[in-house]
Formats: sequence, structure tokens, C-alpha cells
Amino acid sequence: MANMRKKVSVIGAGFTGATTAFLIGQKELADVVLVDIPQLENPAKGKALDMLEASPVQGFDANITGTANYEDTADSDIVIITAGIARKPGMSRDDLVTTNQKIMKSVTQEVVKYSPNCHIIVLTNPVDAMTYTVFKESGFPKNRVIGQSGVLDSARFRTFVAQELNISVKDITGFVLGGHGDDMVPLVRYSYAGGIPLETLIPKARLEAIVERTRKGGGEIVNLLGNGSAYYAPAASLVEMTEAILKDQRRILPAIAYLEGEYGYNGIYLGVPTVLGAAGIEQVIELELTDSEKAALDQSAKSVKTVMGVLA
Amino acid sequence: MANMRKKVSVIGAGFTGATTAFLIGQKELADVVLVDIPQLENPAKGKALDMLEASPVQGFDANITGTANYEDTADSDIVIITAGIARKPGMSRDDLVTTNQKIMKSVTQEVVKYSPNCHIIVLTNPVDAMTYTVFKESGFPKNRVIGQSGVLDSARFRTFVAQELNISVKDITGFVLGGHGDDMVPLVRYSYAGGIPLETLIPKARLEAIVERTRKGGGEIVNLLGNGSAYYAPAASLVEMTEAILKDQRRILPAIAYLEGEYGYNGIYLGVPTVLGAAGIEQVIELELTDSEKAALDQSAKSVKTVMGVLA
Amino acid sequence: MANMRKKVSVIGAGFTGATTAFLIGQKELADVVLVDIPQLENPAKGKALDMLEASPVQGFDANITGTANYEDTADSDIVIITAGIARKPGMSRDDLVTTNQKIMKSVTQEVVKYSPNCHIIVLTNPVDAMTYTVFKESGFPKNRVIGQSGVLDSARFRTFVAQELNISVKDITGFVLGGHGDDMVPLVRYSYAGGIPLETLIPKARLEAIVERTRKGGGEIVNLLGNGSAYYAPAASLVEMTEAILKDQRRILPAIAYLEGEYGYNGIYLGVPTVLGAAGIEQVIELELTDSEKAALDQSAKSVKTVMGVLA
Amino acid sequence: MANMRKKVSVIGAGFTGATTAFLIGQKELADVVLVDIPQLENPAKGKALDMLEASPVQGFDANITGTANYEDTADSDIVIITAGIARKPGMSRDDLVTTNQKIMKSVTQEVVKYSPNCHIIVLTNPVDAMTYTVFKESGFPKNRVIGQSGVLDSARFRTFVAQELNISVKDITGFVLGGHGDDMVPLVRYSYAGGIPLETLIPKARLEAIVERTRKGGGEIVNLLGNGSAYYAPAASLVEMTEAILKDQRRILPAIAYLEGEYGYNGIYLGVPTVLGAAGIEQVIELELTDSEKAALDQSAKSVKTVMGVLA
Repeated sequence: MANMRKKVSVIGAGFTGATTAFLIGQKELADVVLVDIPQLENPAKGKALDMLEASPVQGFDANITGTANYEDTADSDIVIITAGIARKPGMSRDDLVTTNQKIMKSVTQEVVKYSPNCHIIVLTNPVDAMTYTVFKESGFPKNRVIGQSGVLDSARFRTFVAQELNISVKDITGFVLGGHGDDMVPLVRYSYAGGIPLETLIPKARLEAIVERTRKGGGEIVNLLGNGSAYYAPAASLVEMTEAILKDQRRILPAIAYLEGEYGYNGIYLGVPTVLGAAGIEQVIELELTDSEKAALDQSAKSVKTVMGVLA
Repeated sequence: MANMRKKVSVIGAGFTGATTAFLIGQKELADVVLVDIPQLENPAKGKALDMLEASPVQGFDANITGTANYEDTADSDIVIITAGIARKPGMSRDDLVTTNQKIMKSVTQEVVKYSPNCHIIVLTNPVDAMTYTVFKESGFPKNRVIGQSGVLDSARFRTFVAQELNISVKDITGFVLGGHGDDMVPLVRYSYAGGIPLETLIPKARLEAIVERTRKGGGEIVNLLGNGSAYYAPAASLVEMTEAILKDQRRILPAIAYLEGEYGYNGIYLGVPTVLGAAGIEQVIELELTDSEKAALDQSAKSVKTVMGVLA
Repeated sequence: MANMRKKVSVIGAGFTGATTAFLIGQKELADVVLVDIPQLENPAKGKALDMLEASPVQGFDANITGTANYEDTADSDIVIITAGIARKPGMSRDDLVTTNQKIMKSVTQEVVKYSPNCHIIVLTNPVDAMTYTVFKESGFPKNRVIGQSGVLDSARFRTFVAQELNISVKDITGFVLGGHGDDMVPLVRYSYAGGIPLETLIPKARLEAIVERTRKGGGEIVNLLGNGSAYYAPAASLVEMTEAILKDQRRILPAIAYLEGEYGYNGIYLGVPTVLGAAGIEQVIELELTDSEKAALDQSAKSVKTVMGVLA
Repeated sequence: MANMRKKVSVIGAGFTGATTAFLIGQKELADVVLVDIPQLENPAKGKALDMLEASPVQGFDANITGTANYEDTADSDIVIITAGIARKPGMSRDDLVTTNQKIMKSVTQEVVKYSPNCHIIVLTNPVDAMTYTVFKESGFPKNRVIGQSGVLDSARFRTFVAQELNISVKDITGFVLGGHGDDMVPLVRYSYAGGIPLETLIPKARLEAIVERTRKGGGEIVNLLGNGSAYYAPAASLVEMTEAILKDQRRILPAIAYLEGEYGYNGIYLGVPTVLGAAGIEQVIELELTDSEKAALDQSAKSVKTVMGVLA
């Protein structure tokens, strides 16, 4: 069994965490440690072993292990945080925020203790505030604490456009700013099929419907599944960001970044176009926005601040 | 969105079925239709959509759809059956057999109606008897009805050997005959690391422990998960068989094949080495067995017949 | 050795033809027949065998064979024509045209005889006129005779932009209309890094230098090699078009298509954005052009017509 | 353009060196520096640029550059030496040895100067003696100086067996000891199709013919090409060894290793089964040999010593 030199730990062995671990192993990007709480250590071990047993057939060399012991995450290059609870019926948003904040703090302390030089990618919702929490708790420089939302949101947008046009997903690009979900700011202007602006290919009303469907893309899956939420596309998104960093690809990907003046915001984490490479977020790219785009982004930033106000 | 010319339908949208669909799409082997019962149509649709939304990020073109309508499976090249119930505490084995037999019959009728020329690969347990059921119900020639067990069993064996030797899974081969699980007949003689017989590399007692662990490999995962059973490695195994057929690779893979005289058995489905290609099972390879191997295989065949005796 | 159901024949076993064959096999897209003239049959066989001997190591199943006998190309799904001479010092352009025209006619007759339903992709220069020649000689419908130039030209453009910005090639898109080489019409307006228009990222003078370098991209390689011309990027471009058709991906790719009114041209082959899928060129996409872009495209069309005037 | 953290330099930008560079980039294993002598610097640059221009289409991020300046190879993780002359008609073997020895010494001095911690993989013929030369000149520990021959020889053997049986190359394993070419000791006993010993599947005379063809496999390609020698399979072999080391896969691969007592030999480089991982040759595996196998290996060792006797 190979012990490759790169190591990624995934905190939270639920469906998204497990799928993320599998996709990383499958690409031979790194060895993977899948971490859950002591009560869920055995399922984490079981999923990891099942993945490992797929490796001879899929032809990949990566060690994937499950654990509840953070010592096993020592010297990770990247730690991905998927842990946290989902909002349940009757739960207030503030309760969600404070519960997940506690989880983030506790997880971050363990992560930092064993991997003081790692990058951290956060998926837990509400992701902007949770990334901020991890940033503060870790004491890491801002380039090494990154939130995921835009890769997933734009993946959904691209899928819907591909279906609309009956064109390969490989040729559809999409661009999303701002917060996850309802506060998403899809920049249709910067979205293309084969380089051709979507606005010239899809009638305005249809395009607006696609944007709206994208905004509610997480909920669409939740409603269909009946029990649980999306995990294939979220995991794929985490893996793309992970690969960009591990291979120093300098990809231009939307990510939740700590802003210090960019786009006129200060001291908040918000979804913006970034360059992801060996140093994590190596650059925040500032686009010129139209007035309505800026207004939407302001609204998104305001929402983030509201949630941040709930943080303990 | 691409409509490729190859089409695979996966019956049963549980974890194994869903993972199988994803891995097929990811490899761009075929478009995939994920089928479940009407009460579970929405979850099937939700999983399919989630996978599709991963496709722009993972960079694959394949249409993956969920449905409860068998019309959507029309003209499949391959149909994979993962449907069926798992044995629950307190359920007799005979109850499992008769329940799943009913499911196999009903599924097969629908499959045959819409894809009269397809290959069928069966995963549902007890897999030997269920493959036999599908064979009889379909009226298909034996080469087009195939059961999966040996690819998975040998994948587990190879994983444990790779760990024991600390050697790449790519270089470990394993060979398993007979039934799934306890009746498995691992041919250690035909198993190697880099072409070197395992018997010269691993002490006898350790090798026996690995064989025993392989036999109970499914249960090991069940025990760890606490709730549910393995799906990554089973799905990967189904996909390898699917790929061998779709690409006419003529792979030598263990499969559950209908025997008419081979190894001295008649009229039963049993795990044997086969050549898988465009025509499905193109050949059953007969190995010379030692007396003890033949005795173990006889025991395995006897078990299969016992289960077949329960079939309605 | 697998005999997959898809088959591609590559006419011309020089470096581009051979590399194309290898990349197709490596992706398991099809079995490949590499064809050259009788005097060069043995080198074609030698290259094919060498590739085949790489297949166990690279892990791909594809039969690759060399031949001088067109019977071996029978029932190809796609035929790629790379045959022809390169312009030598002292040779007039007209001599090049008439010599390669003869080769195209002779090759096309053989291709059509054995694969009357195939798609043909032409690389031979001058590629617009040679694609036209193959079209006329084959009697095929226009959607099944396609020339390559824009995928390669835009690949070069994307490479130079990626270097300029120090950004992953995965995030750079480029768009090229018109003829190959000097008559290329790069639509910088439709070219992006991570969806961001290049014009906002790269100073005008630098961008013009990149466009100019792209125009002369083939010559740059010729000058460096000293003896021979580019083959890695041309082969990769042919393979991308081949894959789009074989897998019915409906990619938006620039290709040399027969125009009947599109962009105001009639009866000529010219580089335009197309949708490539199972039916070959399934659509020509018409973009609105600025006056200067239209003027450049007119110039390109005029050049094509001049070359067509030389055709016998 | 990505600057990944792994770096491989390939000395000699001929067909094998160039193909090796391309395959490494394509797999995103490392950035690649392709080195040739000053007179051939431009072709090296041209090939590297052509490969880079294929990268947007093939979808890989790797920097590939050509140079004649060894400074550009600084801090390589692995250096692959393909430089050297081929034996020409009328050239004595001793002349070949002394000429390539000079080249090895000069190359090694440069390599060691700029990458004192690298692994070196040698392809230049006669490869056993040339690997020894590099070992001595480098002063490196034996685990970091490795020769290639067995991966290629067994790849050829596997190809011929796959053709003979009409079975996927994925399921054929082969095993070769000893020197390259005529002195090759193919261990048919340790070679299988789907784990089944070849001796039970292929008649003795056919198997001997396959062994004989494998022995002369390099010459077969030379004869077919008419001008030049094999490069696809040699390059693929080098890349497999490179990947095993870079990803610490601990593959069991035949390699030319420095022996200090293993198999009864001392102070020579000879083809034996090894474990390749992060430390290079991490282990030499000693197999029990039959008398005739040992005799053949002795003969091979004797040939190596004869060539070593020519070394200055």
C-alpha cells in the first residue's frame, strides 16, 4: 500500500466527506484520513475500508483510513472541514450558527494542533461565517483558510445551461459571486458556451429561470432526496480546489476569501474569484461590476455580516 | 449534454446502484438510467441530478437520469440489477430468497420488455440463485446473464495482501472461485504479488488469516458501518465488468456463470473464471484443481443448490 | 487484445498521424489503423507495434495496426487524413496545392470505398482547400467532412495566455475564426481567463503580440525543430474532434466547415464555430461580428478562394 | 502555467526522451525539463513548446521546457538519462560502450552538480554498464541509481501473449530477469493471464516463440522502422518507474539494480525484481530459481561483466 507524500484529512465522514475522500484517492492526489467523532469512528473506518477495497479494481494507490483520533491527521497538507449539523425543521438559523460555530472551534483547535502548516477548506454551512470562525480560531494567515461555495454553485449553473443548450458541460463556463444559495450573485455576463456569451444564446426569461434554479439548487436536491442533501457535486467541488492547491495549478476558481478592502469590503469572508495555487488563495481578482451586480453583492455581504453577528 | 450511444440502466438506486451510476458516468462509458420503485423515484432523480451537477467539475459528459419508469431504460446495452432487500435481523434466509426472487422476476420482466438485447449483470444476494432467477425469467442466452461476486471478493483479498506486504494494489492479483462469502474458494495458488506466488512471500498462517478475512469481508464492513453494507467496492466491481463488455476488452474476470458441464456441474450459476467481452461471458475457463480445491468448490456448489431449492 | 466496436483510421503515419493514433488508443476511444503508402508500410507497422507494446504499461486496451492496404480500414467510424507533403524550400504554393490535391483525391477514393459511412477529418495543408477537395471527391454530405485548424490555433493562443498570466491552461479559453495561419481571425473578444475577458487582464500591446505569435505558431515550431513541424498539439486537436464525434459530446469547437450562406459565404470551407457530435458538424454557430472582424474574415475567405482557384 | 512541486529532468531530447517528457506532463506527475546538447537546444525547445501547446486540449497542467543548460535542471526529483548514441552499422560494440560511457560521465557530473538529491533512471545502452557508470560517477547510494530494461521487456512479452490469447493486456503479467535483449531471462513460470500460468494456456512451442520474439523485440522495431528505434514503449516504461517513485507506490517492477550478494552476484548492475518507492529501489526481491534459470542468469551476468570490462 502506497504512502504518498501528500496528505489530506477530511473532517466529517458523512456522505460529502466520504465522497470527497474517495475522489481524492481515486485521483491519487494524496493519502486521505477520514475523521469523525468517537461515536462515529467505526462508520468512518468502514467507509474508508470499503473505498480501499475499491482501489485494486479502480487502479489507484492511496491509503484511505478512518479515525476519531486527530493525531492521525498530523502533518496534513490540506484539511477539509465538512463536519457540522444540517438545519432541521423547527431549528432557528441562529441555533444552527451557534452549534456549528462550536463544532468549527473544536475541530479547528485539533487541526491546528497537528497540522500547523496546512491549508483549510471549509464546506460547513453557513459557510461564510464558518470559514470566518475557522480563520479566527486557527490564527492562520488568510490565504490558508478558504471556503467553498462558488465552484458548486457554478457547477450547477453550468449543468442547467448544458441541458438547456444540449451542449457538452466541458464547454460551459459560469461565474458566481457572493454568498451561497439565495444570496448568490451569478454573473451571467461572464458565463459562456464555447466562449459565446450566454445572453446571446438563451432567451432572457430562460436564463433568469436557470439563475433562479441555481440559487435554489441545494434545496432542489434536498427536496428530491427527501432525507439528506447533495454530496456528489459538493465533494467534486472540494476536490477541484484541493487539486488546484496540491498541484499548484493556479486555477481561477470562485472561493470564499477573506477580504481586506477588495470590492470595498473589510473583515468578512465572501465569495469572489480567486487564484488557487500552492499558497492557497494567491490572489483575489477584482472585477468591474455593474451597479446592479454591486448592489446584489452588497446584499450578499450584508447577509454574511448578519450571520457573523450571531457568532459568539 | 451528450447523448452517447451506449446506455446502461442500473436497477436499484441505493448506495451501490448510485455509486455504480456515478462511476460509469465518470468514465464516460455510457449514459446511465438509475431506476427505483415509484415511492423512491424522487431520491433516484435527486441522486442522478447531484451526479450530473458534479460532471462539469469532474469533466465528464454523460447523461445520468433517475426514474421509476422502465420505458426510460429502453434499448440499454447493459442492465445492472442491484435491487432487492438485505437480510434483516430475525429474517430467515429462505424469506430473503423468496422476497428477492419476486423482485428479480418483476424487474426482469420489465428489463426484457424494453431491452431485449441487453446484457444483465446481477448483484442482488444470494447472488448465485438470483442470477439463476434472472436467467430463467429473461429467457436470455446464458452468456448475457452474469452475476458479480468474484471481482469484489478478489478486490478485498488483494487489498489485504497489499496491506500485508506494503506493496501497490496494482501489483497484487487474486483469484476466487465458488460462491460469495463463506463459500468462497480463494485460489491462493493463483494469487501473486508482482507475479511472485503469495505462498512464497507471506507465512501460511498470515495468508490463511487473510483468506478468512476476505471470506467475511462483507460482514466486516456491515459491522463497521453499523447500518448498511459496502457499496464502493461492489460498485467498482460492477463497473469493471460493465467496461469489459462495453469495450469488448476480453478481460479474464471471475464471474457467476451458468455451467453446463464445466467443472463437472450442470444447470447452476457458480463463480468461475471467465472471459468477458462484447458477447458477455465469452468463455468459462476451466482450471485444474487440487483435490481440496475441488472439494471446496463442491461445497460451494452444494450451497448454491440448497438455495436454489428454496426458489419458487 | 480487445477489438472494440469503434474504429478510426489515420491516413499518413508520419509524426502527427502516429501521435494521433497513440492518443486515440491511450484513451480507449477506438481501435486504430495507421495507413501509409506501400513504401512506408513497414514504418507504419513498426510505430503501431511500438504503441501496442506501450499499452500494457499505460494500461489501455486498443488494437493499433499499421498497413498500406486500405481494406484494413473497412468500416471505420472516423478517418483522419494527415497524409500529404509539406512545403519545401523553393516549392511554389501552387505546386503544394496540386500535389496534395492529388493525394487527397486518391486517399479519398480508397477511404470512401471501404468506409462509405465514416466521418472524415482533414489536417493536410492548405487545409481549407484540401477539406474541400475531400468533400467533393467523397460525395459525402457536408456534415461528415471536417477540417481541423481552429482547435490547434486556439490551443496555441491559450498556451501563450496561460504563460502570460501564469494561470492554469484549464481556465483559459480562446476563439479563432477563419483560415489557418496568417489568415487566422482570433476573436480576442470571445477569449477569457476564468471567464474574465482577456482584454481586461492583459495590456493591449501584449495581447496583440500573443495574437501575432499565435498566427505564426506553426512557423515557430518549424524554426525551432529545424527539420519537420509540430505534431503533439496537432494530434491532440484531431483527437479532441474525434472524441467529440465518437462520444456524441456536442462540443462547441472551431472547425473548418462547408458554408452555404453562413456568415455570408457560399460554397467554401472556412473555420467557424461548430457543434461537433455524433452527426459530425451538427451546427455552424453564427456570431455577430464587428466590422473589423468581418473584414478579417472576408480576407480569410478570399485567401481560401484563391487557393481553391488553383485546384485542378 | 502551473509550477508543480515535483520536477523531472529528461536528458536527451530524441524521440524517447521527448515522449517520456510528454507522458509525464500528460499525467501531471511533474514539471519537465528536456535537456539536449547546445547544438540541439532549439529542437528540444521546439518539442517542449509543441507539447505545451497540446496541454490545453489534453487538459493537463505541467510546465515542459527545453534547454541545453543544466542549471535549468536544478533540484530535480528524478533525472532520466536517455542520451547517448545508438550503435551504427560498422561500429564495434566496444566503441559504443566507450562513447556512451563518456556521455554518461559528462551528463552525470552536470546532473549531480544541480540535483544532488535526485534519483537517476538510466535508459542508455548497454544499459547495465551505463547504469554502473552513472552510479560510480555520481557517488550516489545504490538505491538512487536505477536502470530500465525489464519493464519494457515484459511489456513486449505481455503484448505478444495478449495477442496470442486474444485477451486484454490488463490481465497479462510477465516477468523478466537479467540483461536487456539477447541475455534476457524471461521467467515464464512467473507469467500469467488472469492469474493462470501461461504454461497451461499456451503450447510450449508457441510460448518459446513468444519468448524469442521478446528477446529480439527491440530489433523487430528497428527493422520495421528502417531508421531509428522504438520509443513509445521505452518511454512508457520510464514513466511507470518515475511514477512509482514520485508517488511512493512501492510497485514491484523489474529494474536494473546494483547487487551486493543478491542472487550470488557482487558489484554489478543486473535486471532483478525490485520494489520501487519514494526511496528508489527500496528492495531487491530474491526469487528461487531453477537450475536452468540460474544458468541463464549467470550467462546474463557474465555478459554484463564483459561489457563492464570495456569501461575505461
